[in-house]
Amino acid sequence: MIFASDNWAGAHPRIASALAAHAGGFEPAYGNGPLDAKVQAKFAEIFERDVAVFFVGTGTAANALSLVSADRPGGVSFCHRESHVMDDECGAPEYFTGGSRLHAVDGALGRMDPDNLTSAIGRFAGDNVHAGRAAAVTITQATEIGTLYTPDQIRKISGIARQHGLPLHMDGARFANALVSLGVTPAEMTWKSGVDMVSFGGTKNGCWCAESVLMFDMDRAKEFGFIRKRAAQLFSKSRFIAAQFDAYFEDGLWLETATHANAMASRLAGHVAASASMRLAWQPQANEVFVVMTQDTADALQQKGVHFYDWNTPRAFASQIAPGERLWRFVTSFGTTVEDVDRFGELLS
Amino acid sequence: MIFASDNWAGAHPRIASALAAHAGGFEPAYGNGPLDAKVQAKFAEIFERDVAVFFVGTGTAANALSLVSADRPGGVSFCHRESHVMDDECGAPEYFTGGSRLHAVDGALGRMDPDNLTSAIGRFAGDNVHAGRAAAVTITQATEIGTLYTPDQIRKISGIARQHGLPLHMDGARFANALVSLGVTPAEMTWKSGVDMVSFGGTKNGCWCAESVLMFDMDRAKEFGFIRKRAAQLFSKSRFIAAQFDAYFEDGLWLETATHANAMASRLAGHVAASASMRLAWQPQANEVFVVMTQDTADALQQKGVHFYDWNTPRAFASQIAPGERLWRFVTSFGTTVEDVDRFGELLS
Amino acid sequence: MIFASDNWAGAHPRIASALAAHAGGFEPAYGNGPLDAKVQAKFAEIFERDVAVFFVGTGTAANALSLVSADRPGGVSFCHRESHVMDDECGAPEYFTGGSRLHAVDGALGRMDPDNLTSAIGRFAGDNVHAGRAAAVTITQATEIGTLYTPDQIRKISGIARQHGLPLHMDGARFANALVSLGVTPAEMTWKSGVDMVSFGGTKNGCWCAESVLMFDMDRAKEFGFIRKRAAQLFSKSRFIAAQFDAYFEDGLWLETATHANAMASRLAGHVAASASMRLAWQPQANEVFVVMTQDTADALQQKGVHFYDWNTPRAFASQIAPGERLWRFVTSFGTTVEDVDRFGELLS
Amino acid sequence: MIFASDNWAGAHPRIASALAAHAGGFEPAYGNGPLDAKVQAKFAEIFERDVAVFFVGTGTAANALSLVSADRPGGVSFCHRESHVMDDECGAPEYFTGGSRLHAVDGALGRMDPDNLTSAIGRFAGDNVHAGRAAAVTITQATEIGTLYTPDQIRKISGIARQHGLPLHMDGARFANALVSLGVTPAEMTWKSGVDMVSFGGTKNGCWCAESVLMFDMDRAKEFGFIRKRAAQLFSKSRFIAAQFDAYFEDGLWLETATHANAMASRLAGHVAASASMRLAWQPQANEVFVVMTQDTADALQQKGVHFYDWNTPRAFASQIAPGERLWRFVTSFGTTVEDVDRFGELLS
Repeated sequence: MIFASDNWAGAHPRIASALAAHAGGFEPAYGNGPLDAKVQAKFAEIFERDVAVFFVGTGTAANALSLVSADRPGGVSFCHRESHVMDDECGAPEYFTGGSRLHAVDGALGRMDPDNLTSAIGRFAGDNVHAGRAAAVTITQATEIGTLYTPDQIRKISGIARQHGLPLHMDGARFANALVSLGVTPAEMTWKSGVDMVSFGGTKNGCWCAESVLMFDMDRAKEFGFIRKRAAQLFSKSRFIAAQFDAYFEDGLWLETATHANAMASRLAGHVAASASMRLAWQPQANEVFVVMTQDTADALQQKGVHFYDWNTPRAFASQIAPGERLWRFVTSFGTTVEDVDRFGELLS
Repeated sequence: MIFASDNWAGAHPRIASALAAHAGGFEPAYGNGPLDAKVQAKFAEIFERDVAVFFVGTGTAANALSLVSADRPGGVSFCHRESHVMDDECGAPEYFTGGSRLHAVDGALGRMDPDNLTSAIGRFAGDNVHAGRAAAVTITQATEIGTLYTPDQIRKISGIARQHGLPLHMDGARFANALVSLGVTPAEMTWKSGVDMVSFGGTKNGCWCAESVLMFDMDRAKEFGFIRKRAAQLFSKSRFIAAQFDAYFEDGLWLETATHANAMASRLAGHVAASASMRLAWQPQANEVFVVMTQDTADALQQKGVHFYDWNTPRAFASQIAPGERLWRFVTSFGTTVEDVDRFGELLS
Repeated sequence: MIFASDNWAGAHPRIASALAAHAGGFEPAYGNGPLDAKVQAKFAEIFERDVAVFFVGTGTAANALSLVSADRPGGVSFCHRESHVMDDECGAPEYFTGGSRLHAVDGALGRMDPDNLTSAIGRFAGDNVHAGRAAAVTITQATEIGTLYTPDQIRKISGIARQHGLPLHMDGARFANALVSLGVTPAEMTWKSGVDMVSFGGTKNGCWCAESVLMFDMDRAKEFGFIRKRAAQLFSKSRFIAAQFDAYFEDGLWLETATHANAMASRLAGHVAASASMRLAWQPQANEVFVVMTQDTADALQQKGVHFYDWNTPRAFASQIAPGERLWRFVTSFGTTVEDVDRFGELLS
Repeated sequence: MIFASDNWAGAHPRIASALAAHAGGFEPAYGNGPLDAKVQAKFAEIFERDVAVFFVGTGTAANALSLVSADRPGGVSFCHRESHVMDDECGAPEYFTGGSRLHAVDGALGRMDPDNLTSAIGRFAGDNVHAGRAAAVTITQATEIGTLYTPDQIRKISGIARQHGLPLHMDGARFANALVSLGVTPAEMTWKSGVDMVSFGGTKNGCWCAESVLMFDMDRAKEFGFIRKRAAQLFSKSRFIAAQFDAYFEDGLWLETATHANAMASRLAGHVAASASMRLAWQPQANEVFVVMTQDTADALQQKGVHFYDWNTPRAFASQIAPGERLWRFVTSFGTTVEDVDRFGELLS
């Protein structure tokens, strides 16, 4: 019963097959092969517009380099206090930008609060060289705690960003999980709602290693080839990423795996809700379930072979954790089975 | 007839199979799975000693982060004038170190001349804060132009480095090609000759994407986990690299593919040597053949479907290029066939 | 009536005279002259121990480079939420470290709360490459809002730092103001309380431009010459800084000017306390007075020729500001006269 | 007899007096005072056009930050092989740009050879992400070895830069020495010859510490306030730099001191030319004299109290140094006296 992370799963069989199918023969390196071109065209089709597509190797790279492309001297980028860029990338955004700052913005349920964002940007508006100045806004969809921004909520954020002349980046490590949960189109969830750049992740949803930076502004994209190469993220045998995305999009595999992962999370959440020994921290909207229980209860489950992690309590949730309680995270993926989820449910009852 | 680059080849069938075989099931992420451990142990066996192994995604990353680990304020690293770190990484070493300098050292046939190295380091020795100071030496094996350092030649370089307290890094993007050509052991080609860190490349020799930083000094290695993660090079589904290396080493596949690639280069060189319209620039020692011919001759070949690239003339070779002539590079790989090499040979006669 | 900032004052007459007196003749550059050596010896005498002294040009440089010297890959440094490094240096600490992070720690009255510090460091303890790791702690003395750490409070902070193997840096832009207010020795306020590095500022207390990084650990200091030069902070005509410090320490001038500035702040605070139209935000302990009043009241004063700035409300103080009120800062210096302070007092009554 | 460096001199009496005269009273900090404005207007007058003026503390800062303002991802800047940015700034340009590269261009007598520049830029032209790309060209006037570019020679360089869309920066640490030697106007030596940015140095020519970055492109200048502050080069008591420049320009002091220094160099060169034990390496054009003599001859002079430094032999001059000979540098300044020069001359005869 592995609910440790969606990156504990390997590759979906159709991804693995596609890789094997594309292993043979010679192709131009560094993204110049026909499969690269095919996948780029597929992205344009899916997003219903021109889009610049840059493969990179990790979600951390996708996020950090997006922020590099938006940076300027004295730059400050705004993210949620408990976002991945803030908590789980070892300072990569700051490192790759050469020292720009991430500024934490609070908000309930993993979402930046628009008023807090406005007031945070306000501190860096104008031409005050002592303070530094705003450079970009970045949101995570689905958020680090498995909740979602609706397109309306995204538009609210992008409106504020635009008012200050800032690009809006979306960390879409779990893009597909958010998309199918909201039931909107990729266009609606991104550029139609004011998103300028996307870290489009395939890895957590069934690929081995397939991440892309998407840019809707072709002018900004012109710089990105150098930004990526200088950052050691231009893969020579680029087709091994292209092949994954090719299979990922084929016959809607990506939507299928995300839908499955989300359903497994819902099912798992149902078991939790029915249990007397734990409770849902909040309603899951994608493929992550956050649960409040005691250390003892968690220990007992782990001894029975259930894998999951403890989680730092978000500031906005702190008041809802009683002494002795802790927060825990369960993640489902394309590889999670109904059987495992229900075995877990049985352990609870 | 693709002699453009060894990275135009895809993955060796046994690498591709291994990847497929390891696609299913759940494994701990970020390098903590059993396959990661198995591969690390395999490296220790191959190198006949303890060695810290860090998977990364690209050769550029392996080189740049090795230099980061050796860097210090005002640091200057010494490399051959026409090395890969100098000419083909978009300044990644300087970027990742936050501004340390690469200092070009001349030498014939792609190898740093020891006297030139000594005199170059001399400019940065002592405690002259204006000049900066030496931080590391890095050599490429096989070199960018397909020649080799013998263990004796490596020891000469490492002796100089050690005299100045500098670690010696080896860019082994074509490690296996050098190894089988020299007929020495991995230990002899590295730590027994004074090498401290290796960028151990699998990609050019039959993998999709498998690179490692090897460190023989466990103290230095302690920092590297942070250096790698901060640089966005820690892969979540680490087993997809481990699986490649696992197959790479299995039954000596890596030696076999390198031997084949080298043999194809030799065969191709034979055709060139026998041709009236071109000549070998120098004797190939690994899987790259450098050829002098006119633009017209090259154009004619390319129109007949032969793929190869022009190459910047090394400074030490400039006097040997006549007006109207140019330098061209042919690369062979595990995927190069005797048939293709001989079809090329026929075109020459 | 200039209470805008202590850097609106020029140079104390004795500083100006010393500069003029040392203008003539030739001296070795870059800190190698006899006056440099004399001043360094004077620092050692004042601090009652060996201390490495590095002149730099600005307080921002002193702070940022101190943090560089303590940094390591993935590093995070801890400072008060409203400290100068955080709010007023345009991200210089992050820039010079190449991307290390400043982590805000809350605490009342401008001082880091020890419990908050402990819990903040806890998030970055251990070997979690995703989170990054603690690198240094930095406190400001006097704090950005004119309060002080007692030696006991410093020891509390340094104890926590030491427990985690972290050096403690003190931003002493207003070192002298703090010192004379506490009535302790420089040694007691620094290394005897566990401080490892000091940004020792002379500029705000009567110099033109005289800042020093002090290091009590000679091993750490070995690197600093390169850190400083690479950062463009090694001044060729170093004696122009040395001459300022020479006069600064001569006959206790520095204590005299600080004592005067503090007394002026006290006197000004007395006028505020006696006024019906405003109130002291908190009791001043050095040369800064923070006042709560309405915008209208402030406007009226400014129209009468009183110069002072509005100030961002510290988070810990937010609940004490009523709607319509605002926070304002008044700063005194060696140049502030009793007459000006009392003219201001008259305006209030 | 101090010919060690022009930075061994202190401050010209008129500079020292100006500083003392401006010491008193309150002025807005950070460059916002009336004296700052006056000096900026003076620069505009001297350069016969609008120019953005940014005071900084060191020549290294002026150079490095100019290059920051011209930089872009993968950037490479072109300088003479033995320029100050290359040899004497501890890698500051690379550090402040976060890793952009300096590319050495050869040329006789300290001047970049235009053909070499063209061919160097050619390696980085186009959109080759592996190579990186050209970002800026920087020349030194007077050069590191005391020679000059004529306006025609500058125009040749700027023509090449412009052809590749690159800004041209001039390191004018010895701007005045070059200017008076050429007998042209500041406008002719800079923007009228295609120079876009200037590091305008006052320190070596009689100031304590007065350097400026001048920008003729107001759009580029908009970013520079943040670039400077983030780099810890915004001085709070900015008037102490302004006051120096004010006196520097007053009644043509700067031209007078430069003329004197140059004349002293000429006179010293005359003594060398007349001597049997040494020879001029090349004809001095500003305030530096380079001399070839044996170590023994140099030792004897130094024992008699003559201060001067050995110098790394420029590559282009290497063939003109016989075994046993060495290159030595003598620098004169506003403070050099006829008496000292002639006492030196007597020692030679």
